[in-house]
Amino acid sequence: MSASSTASRRRLPGAERAEQLLDTAEALFADQGYADTSVEDIARAAGITRPIVYQRLGNKEAAYLAVVERVRRDLEERVVAAALSQTDPREQLAAGIDAFLGYLEHQPRRWTLLYGSSTVTVGELGERLTDARFTTVEMIRALLASHAGEGPEIEAFAHLVSGAVEQLGRWWRRHPEEPREVLVQRAVQMLWSGLAPHVRV
Amino acid sequence: MSASSTASRRRLPGAERAEQLLDTAEALFADQGYADTSVEDIARAAGITRPIVYQRLGNKEAAYLAVVERVRRDLEERVVAAALSQTDPREQLAAGIDAFLGYLEHQPRRWTLLYGSSTVTVGELGERLTDARFTTVEMIRALLASHAGEGPEIEAFAHLVSGAVEQLGRWWRRHPEEPREVLVQRAVQMLWSGLAPHVRV
Repeated sequence: MSASSTASRRRLPGAERAEQLLDTAEALFADQGYADTSVEDIARAAGITRPIVYQRLGNKEAAYLAVVERVRRDLEERVVAAALSQTDPREQLAAGIDAFLGYLEHQPRRWTLLYGSSTVTVGELGERLTDARFTTVEMIRALLASHAGEGPEIEAFAHLVSGAVEQLGRWWRRHPEEPREVLVQRAVQMLWSGLAPHVRV
Repeated sequence: MSASSTASRRRLPGAERAEQLLDTAEALFADQGYADTSVEDIARAAGITRPIVYQRLGNKEAAYLAVVERVRRDLEERVVAAALSQTDPREQLAAGIDAFLGYLEHQPRRWTLLYGSSTVTVGELGERLTDARFTTVEMIRALLASHAGEGPEIEAFAHLVSGAVEQLGRWWRRHPEEPREVLVQRAVQMLWSGLAPHVRV
């Protein structure tokens, strides 16, 4: 810690402050939705002024994107770690799907930010949100490629898996009585038969 | 036409006026996104006053829901009609997926309203948008059930198909050079192997 910061009123290091501000913004977007959250709301909840929010996060679109990208990285890390804990490709698929549904179970507000009900957005924010979604699919594709090689079929399959499991998650939110392992089994059974012909033994 | 309406300034019948106002709202939501469209925008574009918009469509949330539900009905009708033009279950799957991607090709703005980039929404609107999405999956489930019977596996499969093809559509928007029939073939090949064991011969 530098001399000037110990001398002044105790302040959080920059990185930690940035994370805390993202926590605040994330909670507001999750609770109120994007359309009904303003930079003013974020400033008030964080106990800072609006210009400071603009300085640290940018405008509302940039703040939303930063929130969503942080959640997506967190989800991706867990899914990759779960998949890589297995070596058999079918088991990797199961572990990845299980981690994805586990995220929904344990971080439902974060999951909802990525895959919950939503309204259309356009322009720069729309493009960047699609980019962010595609990085998750790219992660799935890379996992699959280690067993099934490169190629347009595998890329298409990565998209199919991603969309399929996402929609299964939406269904699960309405049917929480269904055990997670049953959903995982069902998804693997149905998706594996599409992938199996491409897997190199 | 009643005497009073022919006597007054020529006016559209109620149903037609309602459709025209939905057209106006749909174009604004598609071009500007949900968050950046106001009831005032809709009123101005339609050449009527704000109270008239509230009277005919309700508030912004209700207007958005009405727009989305109309688009969804249109899409569902086309997918069902295409699927029912075939009798073989694999051909039905192919025809349904082809119609879904055909909607993206010919009605890209409408497709984007349902499946394009989006930001989280909560509360009543969020619930109703999820309901609307589930009616599409229910349509797929009913189509599958005629060949594969009822049951949780078929319901899960309907969700998988729905999410899978939706994400494939997102990919296609970024790779429009890919021929539609190749995408349909790829999707059918991968999804059919998951469904085939359930189909009654």
